[in-house]
Amino acid sequence: MKFRRSERLIDMTHYLLERPRELVSLTFFSERYGSAKSSISEDLAIIKETFEKQGIGTLQTIPGASGGVKYISKASIKDAKDFIGELCELIASADRLLPGGYLYLTDLLGTPHIMNKVGKLLATAFADSQIDVIMTVATKGIPIAHAISEHLNVPFVIVRGDSKVTEGSTVSINYVSGSTKRIQTMVLSKRSLNEGAKVLIVDDFMKAGGTITGMMNLLDEFNATLAGIAVLVESEDAQERLVDDYVSLVKLMDVNMKNKSIKVVEGNYFYRD
Amino acid sequence: MKFRRSERLIDMTHYLLERPRELVSLTFFSERYGSAKSSISEDLAIIKETFEKQGIGTLQTIPGASGGVKYISKASIKDAKDFIGELCELIASADRLLPGGYLYLTDLLGTPHIMNKVGKLLATAFADSQIDVIMTVATKGIPIAHAISEHLNVPFVIVRGDSKVTEGSTVSINYVSGSTKRIQTMVLSKRSLNEGAKVLIVDDFMKAGGTITGMMNLLDEFNATLAGIAVLVESEDAQERLVDDYVSLVKLMDVNMKNKSIKVVEGNYFYRD
Repeated sequence: MKFRRSERLIDMTHYLLERPRELVSLTFFSERYGSAKSSISEDLAIIKETFEKQGIGTLQTIPGASGGVKYISKASIKDAKDFIGELCELIASADRLLPGGYLYLTDLLGTPHIMNKVGKLLATAFADSQIDVIMTVATKGIPIAHAISEHLNVPFVIVRGDSKVTEGSTVSINYVSGSTKRIQTMVLSKRSLNEGAKVLIVDDFMKAGGTITGMMNLLDEFNATLAGIAVLVESEDAQERLVDDYVSLVKLMDVNMKNKSIKVVEGNYFYRD
Repeated sequence: MKFRRSERLIDMTHYLLERPRELVSLTFFSERYGSAKSSISEDLAIIKETFEKQGIGTLQTIPGASGGVKYISKASIKDAKDFIGELCELIASADRLLPGGYLYLTDLLGTPHIMNKVGKLLATAFADSQIDVIMTVATKGIPIAHAISEHLNVPFVIVRGDSKVTEGSTVSINYVSGSTKRIQTMVLSKRSLNEGAKVLIVDDFMKAGGTITGMMNLLDEFNATLAGIAVLVESEDAQERLVDDYVSLVKLMDVNMKNKSIKVVEGNYFYRD
Protein backbone atom coordinates (compact mmCIF):
# COMPACT_ATOMS: atom_id res chain seq x y z
CA MET A 1 0.00 0.00 0.00
CA LYS A 2 1.45 3.36 -1.11
CA PHE A 3 1.06 6.41 1.12
CA ARG A 4 0.94 10.00 -0.04
CA ARG A 5 3.05 12.55 1.83
CA SER A 6 -0.01 14.06 3.55
CA GLU A 7 -1.02 10.63 4.86
CA ARG A 8 2.52 9.85 5.97
CA LEU A 9 2.77 13.12 7.89
CA ILE A 10 -0.47 12.43 9.78
CA ASP A 11 0.38 8.82 10.58
CA MET A 12 4.00 9.59 11.54
CA THR A 13 2.84 12.40 13.82
CA HIS A 14 0.49 10.01 15.61
CA TYR A 15 3.10 7.24 15.69
CA LEU A 16 5.80 9.46 17.19
CA LEU A 17 3.49 11.20 19.69
CA GLU A 18 2.50 7.78 21.07
CA ARG A 19 6.15 6.80 21.61
CA PRO A 20 8.18 9.60 23.22
CA ARG A 21 11.92 8.84 23.47
CA GLU A 22 11.61 5.60 21.52
CA LEU A 23 14.13 5.26 18.71
CA VAL A 24 12.30 4.65 15.42
CA SER A 25 14.47 3.75 12.41
CA LEU A 26 14.03 5.34 9.00
CA THR A 27 13.87 1.79 7.62
CA PHE A 28 10.77 1.15 9.73
CA PHE A 29 8.97 4.20 8.32
CA SER A 30 10.27 3.49 4.83
CA GLU A 31 8.78 -0.03 4.91
CA ARG A 32 5.59 1.08 6.66
CA TYR A 33 4.79 3.50 3.84
CA GLY A 34 6.58 1.91 0.88
CA SER A 35 8.53 5.16 0.44
CA ALA A 36 12.19 5.98 -0.16
CA LYS A 37 14.26 6.90 2.89
CA SER A 38 14.97 10.27 1.31
CA SER A 39 11.23 11.05 1.33
CA ILE A 40 10.97 9.89 4.96
CA SER A 41 13.86 12.20 5.87
CA GLU A 42 12.06 15.12 4.28
CA ASP A 43 8.86 14.22 6.15
CA LEU A 44 10.72 14.11 9.45
CA ALA A 45 12.30 17.50 8.80
CA ILE A 46 8.84 19.02 8.32
CA ILE A 47 7.52 17.30 11.47
CA LYS A 48 10.50 18.47 13.53
CA GLU A 49 10.09 22.05 12.33
CA THR A 50 6.35 22.07 13.06
CA PHE A 51 6.73 20.41 16.49
CA GLU A 52 9.26 23.07 17.47
CA LYS A 53 7.27 25.98 16.05
CA GLN A 54 4.07 24.85 17.78
CA GLY A 55 5.62 24.01 21.17
CA ILE A 56 4.87 20.30 20.87
CA GLY A 57 8.45 19.15 21.34
CA THR A 58 11.26 18.17 19.05
CA LEU A 59 12.73 15.27 17.09
CA GLN A 60 16.23 14.02 17.86
CA THR A 61 18.05 12.41 14.97
CA ILE A 62 20.53 9.64 15.72
CA PRO A 63 22.76 9.07 12.69
CA GLY A 64 24.29 5.79 11.51
CA ALA A 65 23.10 2.30 10.67
CA SER A 66 21.44 1.74 14.03
CA GLY A 67 20.14 5.30 14.06
CA GLY A 68 16.73 6.83 13.59
CA VAL A 69 14.57 9.44 15.18
CA LYS A 70 13.20 10.07 18.67
CA TYR A 71 10.32 12.33 19.64
CA ILE A 72 11.02 14.39 22.75
CA SER A 73 7.91 15.82 24.42
CA LYS A 74 8.79 19.33 25.50
CA ALA A 75 6.63 22.24 26.61
CA SER A 76 7.65 25.71 25.45
CA ILE A 77 8.32 28.35 28.08
CA LYS A 78 5.29 30.31 26.91
CA ASP A 79 2.96 27.30 27.22
CA ALA A 80 4.41 26.51 30.65
CA LYS A 81 3.88 30.12 31.80
CA ASP A 82 0.29 30.13 30.55
CA PHE A 83 -0.57 26.78 32.07
CA ILE A 84 1.00 27.51 35.47
CA GLY A 85 -0.91 30.81 35.51
CA GLU A 86 -4.17 28.95 34.88
CA LEU A 87 -3.28 26.43 37.56
CA CYS A 88 -2.65 29.18 40.13
CA GLU A 89 -6.05 30.66 39.40
CA LEU A 90 -7.77 27.28 39.63
CA ILE A 91 -6.11 26.48 42.95
CA ALA A 92 -6.72 29.90 44.52
CA SER A 93 -10.48 29.40 44.39
CA ALA A 94 -11.98 29.85 47.89
CA ASP A 95 -14.28 26.84 47.63
CA ARG A 96 -11.21 24.57 47.78
CA LEU A 97 -10.71 25.46 51.45
CA LEU A 98 -11.14 22.54 53.83
CA PRO A 99 -11.15 22.46 57.63
CA GLY A 100 -7.61 22.70 59.02
CA GLY A 101 -6.40 24.86 56.15
CA TYR A 102 -6.18 21.95 53.72
CA LEU A 103 -7.05 22.37 50.05
CA TYR A 104 -9.26 20.18 47.90
CA LEU A 105 -7.24 19.32 44.78
CA THR A 106 -8.67 15.94 43.84
CA ASP A 107 -10.74 17.28 40.93
CA LEU A 108 -7.58 18.55 39.20
CA LEU A 109 -5.88 15.17 39.60
CA GLY A 110 -8.85 13.51 37.89
CA THR A 111 -9.02 15.85 34.89
CA PRO A 112 -7.07 14.21 32.06
CA HIS A 113 -6.19 17.33 30.04
CA ILE A 114 -4.85 19.07 33.16
CA MET A 115 -2.82 16.01 34.12
CA ASN A 116 -1.50 15.80 30.56
CA LYS A 117 -0.13 19.35 30.81
CA VAL A 118 1.26 18.73 34.30
CA GLY A 119 2.96 15.62 32.95
CA LYS A 120 4.37 17.46 29.95
CA LEU A 121 5.77 20.34 32.02
CA LEU A 122 7.38 18.09 34.62
CA ALA A 123 8.77 15.80 31.90
CA THR A 124 10.26 18.90 30.27
CA ALA A 125 12.00 19.83 33.53
CA PHE A 126 13.73 16.44 33.50
CA ALA A 127 14.21 16.15 29.73
CA ASP A 128 18.00 16.06 30.07
CA SER A 129 18.15 13.70 33.05
CA GLN A 130 18.54 9.97 32.77
CA ILE A 131 15.38 8.56 34.32
CA ASP A 132 14.55 4.85 34.35
CA VAL A 133 11.44 4.84 36.49
CA ILE A 134 9.07 7.17 38.30
CA MET A 135 8.06 6.54 41.91
CA THR A 136 5.07 7.95 43.73
CA VAL A 137 3.00 7.18 46.80
CA ALA A 138 -0.67 6.17 46.73
CA THR A 139 -3.20 7.69 46.19
CA LYS A 140 -3.02 11.24 44.93
CA GLY A 141 0.46 11.06 43.42
CA ILE A 142 -0.60 8.35 40.98
CA PRO A 143 -2.22 10.48 38.25
CA ILE A 144 0.80 12.81 38.25
CA ALA A 145 3.30 9.95 38.05
CA HIS A 146 1.20 8.35 35.31
CA ALA A 147 1.08 11.62 33.33
CA ILE A 148 4.85 12.21 33.54
CA SER A 149 5.51 8.57 32.65
CA GLU A 150 3.56 9.01 29.41
CA HIS A 151 5.75 11.92 28.32
CA LEU A 152 9.04 10.32 29.38
CA ASN A 153 7.90 6.85 28.27
CA VAL A 154 9.22 5.11 31.37
CA PRO A 155 7.29 2.95 33.88
CA PHE A 156 6.05 4.15 37.25
CA VAL A 157 5.85 2.33 40.57
CA ILE A 158 3.44 2.98 43.42
CA VAL A 159 4.49 2.97 47.06
CA ARG A 160 1.65 2.03 49.40
CA GLY A 161 0.80 2.52 53.04
CA ASP A 162 0.27 -1.18 53.62
CA SER A 163 1.19 -4.52 52.16
CA LYS A 164 -1.25 -6.25 49.78
CA VAL A 165 -1.22 -9.90 48.76
CA THR A 166 -1.22 -8.89 45.08
CA GLU A 167 2.13 -7.12 45.47
CA GLY A 168 4.11 -10.26 46.35
CA SER A 169 7.17 -9.83 48.60
CA THR A 170 7.63 -6.26 49.71
CA VAL A 171 10.18 -4.00 51.36
CA SER A 172 8.85 -1.67 54.01
CA ILE A 173 10.31 1.29 55.87
CA ASN A 174 9.08 3.64 58.56
CA TYR A 175 9.10 7.40 58.21
CA VAL A 176 7.85 10.44 60.08
CA SER A 177 5.01 12.23 58.36
CA GLY A 178 5.78 15.93 58.17
CA SER A 179 2.24 17.07 58.88
CA THR A 180 1.11 14.62 61.58
CA LYS A 181 4.59 13.95 63.08
CA ARG A 182 3.52 10.34 63.44
CA ILE A 183 5.52 7.29 62.46
CA GLN A 184 4.07 5.80 59.29
CA THR A 185 4.93 2.87 57.05
CA MET A 186 5.72 2.74 53.34
CA VAL A 187 5.71 -0.46 51.37
CA LEU A 188 7.01 -1.22 47.90
CA SER A 189 6.83 -4.48 46.00
CA LYS A 190 10.28 -6.05 45.83
CA ARG A 191 10.13 -6.85 42.16
CA SER A 192 8.97 -3.40 41.11
CA LEU A 193 12.36 -1.66 41.23
CA ASN A 194 15.71 -2.86 39.86
CA GLU A 195 19.02 -2.31 41.57
CA GLY A 196 20.76 0.78 40.22
CA ALA A 197 17.58 2.28 38.74
CA LYS A 198 17.56 6.08 38.39
CA VAL A 199 14.33 7.24 39.98
CA LEU A 200 12.24 10.39 39.66
CA ILE A 201 10.18 10.83 42.85
CA VAL A 202 6.80 12.49 42.35
CA ASP A 203 4.03 13.69 44.64
CA ASP A 204 1.01 15.98 44.50
CA PHE A 205 1.80 18.09 47.56
CA MET A 206 4.94 18.81 49.57
CA LYS A 207 5.00 20.60 52.89
CA ALA A 208 7.88 19.60 55.15
CA GLY A 209 8.84 16.83 52.74
CA GLY A 210 8.43 13.88 55.11
CA THR A 211 6.75 11.64 52.56
CA ILE A 212 9.36 12.40 49.93
CA THR A 213 12.17 11.74 52.41
CA GLY A 214 10.47 8.43 53.12
CA MET A 215 10.58 7.54 49.43
CA MET A 216 14.26 8.53 49.30
CA ASN A 217 14.97 6.12 52.17
CA LEU A 218 13.10 3.44 50.27
CA LEU A 219 15.42 4.01 47.27
CA ASP A 220 18.39 3.14 49.50
CA GLU A 221 16.78 -0.19 50.37
CA PHE A 222 16.64 -1.01 46.67
CA ASN A 223 20.12 0.35 45.89
CA ALA A 224 18.38 2.71 43.50
CA THR A 225 19.47 6.31 42.99
CA LEU A 226 17.57 9.56 43.05
CA ALA A 227 17.34 11.29 39.67
CA GLY A 228 15.04 14.12 40.76
CA ILE A 229 11.97 15.21 42.70
CA ALA A 230 8.84 16.74 41.18
CA VAL A 231 5.75 18.03 42.95
CA LEU A 232 2.58 19.70 41.73
CA VAL A 233 2.16 22.00 44.75
CA GLU A 234 4.68 23.01 47.36
CA SER A 235 3.58 24.77 50.50
CA GLU A 236 5.39 27.76 51.96
CA ASP A 237 4.77 27.44 55.69
CA ALA A 238 7.20 24.65 56.45
CA GLN A 239 9.44 25.42 59.43
CA GLU A 240 12.25 23.28 58.19
CA ARG A 241 12.10 21.56 54.86
CA LEU A 242 13.70 18.15 54.60
CA VAL A 243 14.08 18.32 50.83
CA ASP A 244 15.70 21.16 48.93
CA ASP A 245 16.38 20.04 45.37
CA TYR A 246 13.01 19.66 43.67
CA VAL A 247 10.80 21.10 40.94
CA SER A 248 7.35 22.49 41.75
CA LEU A 249 4.72 23.92 39.43
CA VAL A 250 2.92 26.08 41.99
CA LYS A 251 3.60 27.31 45.50
CA LEU A 252 0.99 27.80 48.17
CA MET A 253 1.98 30.99 50.04
CA ASP A 254 -0.81 31.48 52.47
CA VAL A 255 -4.13 29.94 53.39
CA ASN A 256 -6.31 32.18 55.50
CA MET A 257 -9.35 30.39 56.92
CA LYS A 258 -10.78 33.58 58.48
CA ASN A 259 -11.19 35.67 55.35
CA LYS A 260 -11.25 32.59 53.14
CA SER A 261 -8.34 33.54 50.96
CA ILE A 262 -5.68 31.41 49.32
CA LYS A 263 -2.49 32.85 47.90
CA VAL A 264 -0.87 30.77 45.18
CA VAL A 265 2.15 31.73 43.05
CA GLU A 266 4.38 30.04 40.49
CA GLY A 267 6.59 27.32 41.92
CA ASN A 268 10.31 27.14 41.21
CA TYR A 269 9.76 25.68 37.71
CA PHE A 270 11.38 28.63 35.93
CA TYR A 271 13.89 29.57 38.60
CA ARG A 272 16.02 26.55 39.22
CA ASP A 273 19.63 26.61 38.25
CA MET B 1 1.78 33.55 10.30
CA LYS B 2 0.86 31.46 7.28
CA PHE B 3 0.94 27.68 7.49
CA ARG B 4 1.57 25.30 4.63
CA ARG B 5 -0.72 22.29 4.29
CA SER B 6 1.97 19.89 5.56
CA GLU B 7 2.42 21.97 8.72
CA ARG B 8 -1.33 22.26 9.21
CA LEU B 9 -1.78 18.49 8.93
CA ILE B 10 0.88 17.84 11.57
CA ASP B 11 -0.38 20.48 13.99
CA MET B 12 -4.05 19.57 13.52
CA THR B 13 -3.26 15.89 14.11
CA HIS B 14 -1.56 16.75 17.39
CA TYR B 15 -4.29 19.20 18.37
CA LEU B 16 -7.10 16.72 17.74
CA LEU B 17 -5.30 13.75 19.35
CA GLU B 18 -4.91 15.79 22.54
CA ARG B 19 -8.63 16.56 22.67
CA PRO B 20 -10.78 13.49 22.01
CA ARG B 21 -14.52 14.24 21.76
CA GLU B 22 -13.99 18.00 22.02
CA LEU B 23 -15.83 19.99 19.36
CA VAL B 24 -13.35 22.16 17.45
CA SER B 25 -14.82 24.67 15.02
CA LEU B 26 -13.53 25.18 11.49
CA THR B 27 -13.27 28.88 12.34
CA PHE B 28 -10.80 28.06 15.10
CA PHE B 29 -8.53 26.16 12.73
CA SER B 30 -9.02 28.73 9.99
CA GLU B 31 -7.84 31.53 12.31
CA ARG B 32 -5.07 29.43 13.85
CA TYR B 33 -3.48 28.90 10.44
CA GLY B 34 -4.64 31.94 8.49
CA SER B 35 -6.23 29.59 5.95
CA ALA B 36 -9.58 29.49 4.17
CA LYS B 37 -12.24 27.23 5.65
CA SER B 38 -12.33 25.30 2.39
CA SER B 39 -8.65 24.38 2.84
CA ILE B 40 -9.30 23.36 6.46
CA SER B 41 -12.16 21.12 5.28
CA GLU B 42 -9.84 19.43 2.83
CA ASP B 43 -7.22 18.95 5.54
CA LEU B 44 -9.80 17.37 7.85
CA ALA B 45 -10.95 15.00 5.13
CA ILE B 46 -7.37 13.75 4.70
CA ILE B 47 -6.93 13.39 8.47
CA LYS B 48 -10.21 11.50 8.81
CA GLU B 49 -9.30 9.13 6.00
CA THR B 50 -5.83 8.46 7.43
CA PHE B 51 -7.10 8.01 11.00
CA GLU B 52 -9.60 5.42 9.78
CA LYS B 53 -7.14 3.64 7.51
CA GLN B 54 -4.51 3.41 10.25
CA GLY B 55 -6.83 2.37 13.08
CA ILE B 56 -6.29 5.60 15.04
CA GLY B 57 -9.97 6.54 15.23
CA THR B 58 -12.24 8.81 13.27
CA LEU B 59 -13.40 12.40 12.92
CA GLN B 60 -17.07 13.26 13.43
CA THR B 61 -18.28 16.29 11.55
CA ILE B 62 -21.04 18.37 13.10
CA PRO B 63 -22.58 20.65 10.44
CA GLY B 64 -24.01 24.14 10.91
CA ALA B 65 -22.90 27.44 12.41
CA SER B 66 -22.09 25.97 15.81
CA GLY B 67 -20.58 22.89 14.21
CA GLY B 68 -17.09 21.64 13.77
CA VAL B 69 -15.17 18.45 14.13
CA LYS B 70 -14.58 15.91 16.92
CA TYR B 71 -11.85 13.31 17.13
CA ILE B 72 -13.11 9.94 18.37
CA SER B 73 -10.36 7.64 19.64
CA LYS B 74 -11.23 4.16 18.41
CA ALA B 75 -9.19 0.98 18.22
CA SER B 76 -9.68 -1.20 15.15
CA ILE B 77 -10.76 -4.82 15.69
CA LYS B 78 -7.42 -6.02 14.37
CA ASP B 79 -5.43 -3.84 16.78
CA ALA B 80 -7.66 -4.93 19.65
CA LYS B 81 -7.16 -8.62 18.74
CA ASP B 82 -3.39 -8.20 18.53
CA PHE B 83 -3.13 -6.29 21.78
CA ILE B 84 -5.37 -8.64 23.77
CA GLY B 85 -3.30 -11.53 22.43
CA GLU B 86 -0.11 -9.86 23.68
CA LEU B 87 -1.77 -9.16 27.02
CA CYS B 88 -2.78 -12.82 27.44
CA GLU B 89 0.81 -13.89 26.83
CA LEU B 90 2.17 -11.30 29.23
CA ILE B 91 -0.25 -12.34 31.97
CA ALA B 92 0.24 -16.10 31.50
CA SER B 93 3.91 -15.84 32.52
CA ALA B 94 4.60 -18.23 35.44
CA ASP B 95 6.68 -15.72 37.39
CA ARG B 96 3.51 -13.73 38.05
CA LEU B 97 2.25 -16.43 40.41
CA LEU B 98 1.93 -15.32 44.02
CA PRO B 99 1.08 -17.34 47.14
CA GLY B 100 -2.65 -18.06 47.35
CA GLY B 101 -3.05 -18.21 43.57
CA TYR B 102 -2.90 -14.42 43.14
CA LEU B 103 -1.21 -12.83 40.15
CA TYR B 104 1.28 -9.98 40.11
CA LEU B 105 -0.05 -7.42 37.59
CA THR B 106 1.33 -4.18 39.02
CA ASP B 107 4.08 -3.85 36.41
CA LEU B 108 1.50 -3.76 33.60
CA LEU B 109 -0.47 -1.04 35.39
CA GLY B 110 2.69 1.08 35.59
CA THR B 111 3.68 0.74 31.92
CA PRO B 112 2.33 3.79 30.09
CA HIS B 113 2.13 2.35 26.57
CA ILE B 114 0.25 -0.72 27.83
CA MET B 115 -2.15 1.45 29.81
CA ASN B 116 -2.64 3.66 26.75
CA LYS B 117 -3.78 0.66 24.71
CA VAL B 118 -5.96 -0.63 27.55
CA GLY B 119 -7.52 2.82 27.77
CA LYS B 120 -8.09 3.01 24.03
CA LEU B 121 -9.72 -0.43 23.81
CA LEU B 122 -12.03 0.14 26.77
CA ALA B 123 -12.91 3.64 25.52
CA THR B 124 -13.77 2.03 22.16
CA ALA B 125 -16.13 -0.40 23.89
CA PHE B 126 -18.05 2.57 25.32
CA ALA B 127 -17.67 4.90 22.33
CA ASP B 128 -21.43 5.06 21.79
CA SER B 129 -22.43 5.40 25.45
CA GLN B 130 -23.00 8.71 27.17
CA ILE B 131 -20.36 8.82 29.91
CA ASP B 132 -19.83 11.85 32.15
CA VAL B 133 -17.30 10.47 34.58
CA ILE B 134 -15.24 7.36 35.30
CA MET B 135 -15.13 5.85 38.79
CA THR B 136 -12.55 3.49 40.18
CA VAL B 137 -11.28 2.32 43.53
CA ALA B 138 -7.76 2.94 44.87
CA THR B 139 -5.08 1.79 44.18
CA LYS B 140 -4.73 -0.48 41.19
CA GLY B 141 -7.78 0.73 39.28
CA ILE B 142 -6.39 4.26 39.02
CA PRO B 143 -4.05 3.87 36.02
CA ILE B 144 -6.81 2.12 34.07
CA ALA B 145 -9.39 4.79 34.91
CA HIS B 146 -6.84 7.48 34.03
CA ALA B 147 -6.05 5.82 30.68
CA ILE B 148 -9.72 5.47 29.67
CA SER B 149 -10.41 9.04 30.79
CA GLU B 150 -7.76 10.30 28.38
CA HIS B 151 -9.43 8.60 25.41
CA LEU B 152 -12.98 9.60 26.39
CA ASN B 153 -11.84 13.01 27.64
CA VAL B 154 -13.95 12.89 30.80
CA PRO B 155 -12.81 13.19 34.43
CA PHE B 156 -12.29 10.26 36.78
CA VAL B 157 -12.97 9.96 40.51
CA ILE B 158 -11.23 7.70 43.01
CA VAL B 159 -13.08 5.78 45.70
CA ARG B 160 -10.92 5.10 48.76
CA GLY B 161 -10.88 2.65 51.62
CA ASP B 162 -10.76 5.38 54.23
CA SER B 163 -11.54 9.03 54.66
CA LYS B 164 -8.75 11.61 54.25
CA VAL B 165 -8.79 15.23 55.42
CA THR B 166 -7.89 16.38 51.89
CA GLU B 167 -11.11 14.92 50.48
CA GLY B 168 -13.45 17.19 52.46
CA SER B 169 -16.90 15.82 53.33
CA THR B 170 -17.35 12.27 52.16
CA VAL B 171 -20.06 9.66 51.68
CA SER B 172 -19.21 6.17 52.84
CA ILE B 173 -20.84 2.79 52.41
CA ASN B 174 -20.08 -0.73 53.58
CA TYR B 175 -19.78 -3.67 51.24
CA VAL B 176 -18.77 -7.31 51.37
CA SER B 177 -15.50 -8.06 49.63
CA GLY B 178 -15.93 -11.00 47.29
CA SER B 179 -12.58 -12.55 48.05
CA THR B 180 -12.26 -12.07 51.81
CA LYS B 181 -16.02 -12.11 52.61
CA ARG B 182 -15.33 -9.36 55.12
CA ILE B 183 -17.25 -6.15 55.54
CA GLN B 184 -15.23 -3.26 54.13
CA THR B 185 -15.76 0.45 53.71
CA MET B 186 -15.71 2.64 50.62
CA VAL B 187 -15.46 6.38 50.78
CA LEU B 188 -16.00 9.02 48.10
CA SER B 189 -15.61 12.75 48.39
CA LYS B 190 -19.04 14.39 48.32
CA ARG B 191 -18.10 17.05 45.84
CA SER B 192 -16.51 14.67 43.37
CA LEU B 193 -19.70 13.38 41.76
CA ASN B 194 -22.73 15.35 40.53
CA GLU B 195 -26.30 14.18 40.85
CA GLY B 196 -27.47 12.46 37.68
CA ALA B 197 -23.95 11.80 36.39
CA LYS B 198 -23.59 8.83 34.05
CA VAL B 199 -20.73 6.77 35.43
CA LEU B 200 -18.42 4.16 33.93
CA ILE B 201 -17.11 1.91 36.72
CA VAL B 202 -13.59 0.56 36.18
CA ASP B 203 -11.35 -1.88 38.01
CA ASP B 204 -8.23 -3.91 37.34
CA PHE B 205 -9.54 -7.29 38.47
CA MET B 206 -13.00 -8.78 38.97
CA LYS B 207 -13.68 -12.08 40.66
CA ALA B 208 -17.07 -12.28 42.40
CA GLY B 209 -17.65 -8.58 41.72
CA GLY B 210 -17.99 -7.44 45.35
CA THR B 211 -15.92 -4.30 44.90
CA ILE B 212 -17.81 -3.32 41.77
CA THR B 213 -21.15 -3.93 43.49
CA GLY B 214 -19.89 -1.66 46.25
CA MET B 215 -19.22 1.11 43.75
CA MET B 216 -22.69 0.60 42.26
CA ASN B 217 -24.18 1.10 45.74
CA LEU B 218 -22.13 4.24 46.09
CA LEU B 219 -23.66 5.55 42.83
CA ASP B 220 -27.10 5.28 44.43
CA GLU B 221 -25.97 7.47 47.32
CA PHE B 222 -25.05 10.17 44.80
CA ASN B 223 -28.15 9.67 42.65
CA ALA B 224 -25.78 8.91 39.82
CA THR B 225 -26.46 6.27 37.19
CA LEU B 226 -24.40 3.37 35.91
CA ALA B 227 -23.30 3.76 32.29
CA GLY B 228 -21.12 0.65 32.16
CA ILE B 229 -18.51 -1.54 33.82
CA ALA B 230 -15.04 -2.21 32.45
CA VAL B 231 -12.32 -4.45 33.87
CA LEU B 232 -8.87 -5.41 32.70
CA VAL B 233 -8.98 -9.00 33.98
CA GLU B 234 -11.96 -11.10 34.96
CA SER B 235 -11.48 -14.35 36.79
CA GLU B 236 -13.36 -17.51 35.91
CA ASP B 237 -13.64 -19.31 39.22
CA ALA B 238 -16.37 -17.24 40.79
CA GLN B 239 -19.14 -19.34 42.28
CA GLU B 240 -21.76 -16.71 41.80
CA ARG B 241 -20.96 -13.46 40.11
CA LEU B 242 -22.71 -10.37 41.41
CA VAL B 243 -22.20 -8.42 38.19
CA ASP B 244 -23.15 -9.63 34.73
CA ASP B 245 -23.07 -6.71 32.33
CA TYR B 246 -19.43 -5.71 31.93
CA VAL B 247 -16.57 -5.59 29.44
CA SER B 248 -13.32 -7.42 30.12
CA LEU B 249 -10.14 -7.54 28.07
CA VAL B 250 -8.82 -10.86 29.36
CA LYS B 251 -10.18 -13.76 31.35
CA LEU B 252 -8.22 -15.80 33.84
CA MET B 253 -9.39 -19.40 33.39
CA ASP B 254 -7.18 -21.33 35.71
CA VAL B 255 -4.27 -20.79 38.05
CA ASN B 256 -2.47 -23.94 39.02
CA MET B 257 0.05 -23.45 41.82
CA LYS B 258 1.29 -27.03 41.66
CA ASN B 259 2.55 -27.11 38.08
CA LYS B 260 2.91 -23.33 37.99
CA SER B 261 0.62 -22.74 35.05
CA ILE B 262 -1.74 -19.89 34.31
CA LYS B 263 -4.42 -20.10 31.66
CA VAL B 264 -5.53 -16.77 30.23
CA VAL B 265 -7.92 -16.20 27.31
CA GLU B 266 -9.63 -13.25 25.65
CA GLY B 267 -12.28 -11.59 27.80
CA ASN B 268 -15.76 -10.80 26.49
CA TYR B 269 -14.53 -7.70 24.58
CA PHE B 270 -15.50 -9.07 21.17
CA TYR B 271 -18.48 -11.14 22.24
CA ARG B 272 -20.89 -8.81 23.90
CA ASP B 273 -24.19 -8.10 22.24
